[in-house]
Amino acid sequence: MCRWLAYTGSPIKPEELLVKRDRSLIDQSLHARQGATTTNGDGFGLGWYEEGEGPRVYRSTHPAWNDRNLRELAAGISSPLFFAHIRASTGTAIQETNTHPFRYGRWLWMHNGLIREFPRVKRDLVLAIDDSLFPSIEGTTDSETMFYLALTFGLESEPVAAVERMVGFVEKTGREHGVDLPIQMTVATTDGRTVWAFRYSSQGDSRSLFYSTRVDTLRKLHPDMTFLEGVSDETRLIVSEPLGDLPGAWNEVPESSYGVVQPGADELYPFAPAPA
Amino acid sequence: MCRWLAYTGSPIKPEELLVKRDRSLIDQSLHARQGATTTNGDGFGLGWYEEGEGPRVYRSTHPAWNDRNLRELAAGISSPLFFAHIRASTGTAIQETNTHPFRYGRWLWMHNGLIREFPRVKRDLVLAIDDSLFPSIEGTTDSETMFYLALTFGLESEPVAAVERMVGFVEKTGREHGVDLPIQMTVATTDGRTVWAFRYSSQGDSRSLFYSTRVDTLRKLHPDMTFLEGVSDETRLIVSEPLGDLPGAWNEVPESSYGVVQPGADELYPFAPAPA
Amino acid sequence: MCRWLAYTGSPIKPEELLVKRDRSLIDQSLHARQGATTTNGDGFGLGWYEEGEGPRVYRSTHPAWNDRNLRELAAGISSPLFFAHIRASTGTAIQETNTHPFRYGRWLWMHNGLIREFPRVKRDLVLAIDDSLFPSIEGTTDSETMFYLALTFGLESEPVAAVERMVGFVEKTGREHGVDLPIQMTVATTDGRTVWAFRYSSQGDSRSLFYSTRVDTLRKLHPDMTFLEGVSDETRLIVSEPLGDLPGAWNEVPESSYGVVQPGADELYPFAPAPA
Amino acid sequence: MCRWLAYTGSPIKPEELLVKRDRSLIDQSLHARQGATTTNGDGFGLGWYEEGEGPRVYRSTHPAWNDRNLRELAAGISSPLFFAHIRASTGTAIQETNTHPFRYGRWLWMHNGLIREFPRVKRDLVLAIDDSLFPSIEGTTDSETMFYLALTFGLESEPVAAVERMVGFVEKTGREHGVDLPIQMTVATTDGRTVWAFRYSSQGDSRSLFYSTRVDTLRKLHPDMTFLEGVSDETRLIVSEPLGDLPGAWNEVPESSYGVVQPGADELYPFAPAPA
Repeated sequence: MCRWLAYTGSPIKPEELLVKRDRSLIDQSLHARQGATTTNGDGFGLGWYEEGEGPRVYRSTHPAWNDRNLRELAAGISSPLFFAHIRASTGTAIQETNTHPFRYGRWLWMHNGLIREFPRVKRDLVLAIDDSLFPSIEGTTDSETMFYLALTFGLESEPVAAVERMVGFVEKTGREHGVDLPIQMTVATTDGRTVWAFRYSSQGDSRSLFYSTRVDTLRKLHPDMTFLEGVSDETRLIVSEPLGDLPGAWNEVPESSYGVVQPGADELYPFAPAPA
Repeated sequence: MCRWLAYTGSPIKPEELLVKRDRSLIDQSLHARQGATTTNGDGFGLGWYEEGEGPRVYRSTHPAWNDRNLRELAAGISSPLFFAHIRASTGTAIQETNTHPFRYGRWLWMHNGLIREFPRVKRDLVLAIDDSLFPSIEGTTDSETMFYLALTFGLESEPVAAVERMVGFVEKTGREHGVDLPIQMTVATTDGRTVWAFRYSSQGDSRSLFYSTRVDTLRKLHPDMTFLEGVSDETRLIVSEPLGDLPGAWNEVPESSYGVVQPGADELYPFAPAPA
Repeated sequence: MCRWLAYTGSPIKPEELLVKRDRSLIDQSLHARQGATTTNGDGFGLGWYEEGEGPRVYRSTHPAWNDRNLRELAAGISSPLFFAHIRASTGTAIQETNTHPFRYGRWLWMHNGLIREFPRVKRDLVLAIDDSLFPSIEGTTDSETMFYLALTFGLESEPVAAVERMVGFVEKTGREHGVDLPIQMTVATTDGRTVWAFRYSSQGDSRSLFYSTRVDTLRKLHPDMTFLEGVSDETRLIVSEPLGDLPGAWNEVPESSYGVVQPGADELYPFAPAPA
Repeated sequence: MCRWLAYTGSPIKPEELLVKRDRSLIDQSLHARQGATTTNGDGFGLGWYEEGEGPRVYRSTHPAWNDRNLRELAAGISSPLFFAHIRASTGTAIQETNTHPFRYGRWLWMHNGLIREFPRVKRDLVLAIDDSLFPSIEGTTDSETMFYLALTFGLESEPVAAVERMVGFVEKTGREHGVDLPIQMTVATTDGRTVWAFRYSSQGDSRSLFYSTRVDTLRKLHPDMTFLEGVSDETRLIVSEPLGDLPGAWNEVPESSYGVVQPGADELYPFAPAPA
């Protein structure tokens, strides 16, 4: 089981969230607490945007806690929107091209979960990917296949509808192969402006997903946290597992829901698969 | 452009051919002479059989000349049949799963050359791979795709006919996409007993391929080479570029041909693509 | 805290102990149970001897559980004497030259533990290493420094006395720098015939160390274990933490002791530091 | 033989010099032209400063031409002062801690050349390093030893005098061990504001070193180069081998000289070793 974090708001150095805190993402990679897998040592990825540019992606197959270059990079850049992901492989090879976040054009995608019995259904899923997208696939994971299916179904123009269709198609294909509960996922995707985060599983018992309380509320709860002074009220974090132990800081995304984080009011809606 | 070597005969330590000699395969990885690419620094693979076992495969993305583990392994095992390959990527990612030799069951496969405009034709080629083989694909190269097509077309029962059909299919598919000269290849494959080596290209101007003179002849030509005393007369090497500078040691495999190296007499035949 | 295993006896494939069993060394690398550190993901090493040759050393900085080459190698060789080590760094860099076992000539050395406040005492320790040995040091760990000090103090001719002097010197040097409890160690070393294993710490509370019951006894206790049929009565394992859950299989090496495993009767003696 | 580049001036993305141009540093890593070694595939390092921060260091043991993370990083940061180095090992291990530039506090250091017969003289050189600096040494190269000797001899307060003493000490120590021509070097070092570049060898025949013509002159010579429009007149490059084929762009640093690149007028002086 993987761990991930999506940040959007005032530009910060990623090290603030990846390295510095107790229960930072790197600390979690050594000691996952709410996850199904003991250790997340199968690779790390950081995808980030800068002013009008990006995304850039740094990906490594070394455990995050060993990766000096990651610490240098996380201190050397500043970004208003970044994704970070630590991987625990569910079977596919440990290689950079299987490491999240995945990138296509302006888009990033990362995933925690799995397509069940992926080797059995992979061929049918891959065949449904659009001809023009096919040559861009670089790795061999279920997560990247989900991304390219979502792109095939219109992610760039209607992101929510495209993810609904992707999930519908994965569930239909799985059931055709006799798989009872074909998908388990928390997914984040972004075009560099808006972040969409989805929590869904065929069994209605999805892996955890949390979003942070508004910064103005947090500041009132924790006036001692100087880190919060420098960031805008709209700064938001979405994480697979809470970082740190701030009372009042984390709200669970409900089962079968998705959130939209954007300039202006954020939104939370129910999520259901749709026919492809 | 890659470099490769296939050895069959009396068991030897691979270091004899990979490390020790001037113009060994590792020396070639730094200074390819007859190749199109300056340096073969994009990975190394060694596949080997032992008495009734194997193949085992060691693959690394570090340049062969830097890889200490490779040197230890090449000195620590002894094998009657091994394949070694140094890679110069023609575009796909540098990762272990893209490194030759590829393995399926008892079979090994390695390749020097390319499928032209692979991104354009990849999808049609991949769709032709048999359902049952599809989940075993681990990488993203043209070379591995050729292997799985050959397996689909019967490599395990009729190896030559299967490679003929694979090449026929790649040429047909390429031409349907407007590619003039779809394939360029020297390929070696083995089931652990017999080695087949193919030299073919659509343009009739294939990359070089050589086989070694019979050991008894070599011994007469070079009575000073003590290395030759310990190996059987049937020992044979097939290489993309001659190792060392032994006069009389190397014979070129003719254009559009294949050789069969096996217990008993070796054979050399013309090669032509066939309908799939 | 690291984990290690020393095997001596009938030649076996290392995969029997590293990969195949529940609570194998690789399984332990994910879930150390008696150790101070959660995860041993900072590298892996295998050192082995063959008939009259060796040692060879394979070392990797990838976590053992991810390392495909390690699995191939552990299945592809057979050895009557091998050391395996999984590392959890206590601060020095993650790199192959810091990975155990260390090799000098015919000798191997591996260690679990630490020299306390190593940065403060390192210079004085390194200065005591013999001129002729100095250029062979490749890494930066306390463990390798201990090895070269033991070599300086006569490891190749009087191994036990040399380790006694090494520990005495490390304790003396530490105390001169105000370090209360300078050393904590379980160490294994071998010349390819005999294995010496030491358990000692300045505080008299050393990390765990176990040796296996004689194979003939084990066979009577566990007649169902076919693995034991093929190995000689003198086969012996020394491990930092028991492998598997065999009742009667493991005996703890007492505090401040060392064992000698050799052809003929094995021996267990008290251990105490000596003046250098 | 290594290759290096030092940039100081208007902030640019390092990819402008490392990746984009014909004969960029990465292109050189595949095809060194004036160097003694065919291929620079033994690692890459980038050290950079930002506004009032740094240096950060990214180091990799993969060949620069394969390293996707390097390309992302070189496009994702912007810096007014950076060092880049591609390594061809002269014998020490390929590992990140042996990769240039080396860092200590605010300082960076990189080197092309060697200390001759380094294994013989290493111990005496290392013993001369100051106690307080000793624990910061991470690797095993002659280049890093030169850096720590220069720090010992006052690099932070009198950089030129410290390098003179370091060279004097290396030559004296080498000769004491019977080494005729103890040192061969081009070195760059910086504190983040000023860059010092040295060209010296015991034999008076040092490896090449070039500095770029003033930008205002270059603009007149090459009005078509849009890249030059955005950078200040004081922007300066120092390189081991010219980048690109701009007539009038490159001036050779004379034998036994050093240059100082700083705000205001740059300077070029003779260099000679001094007693330590």
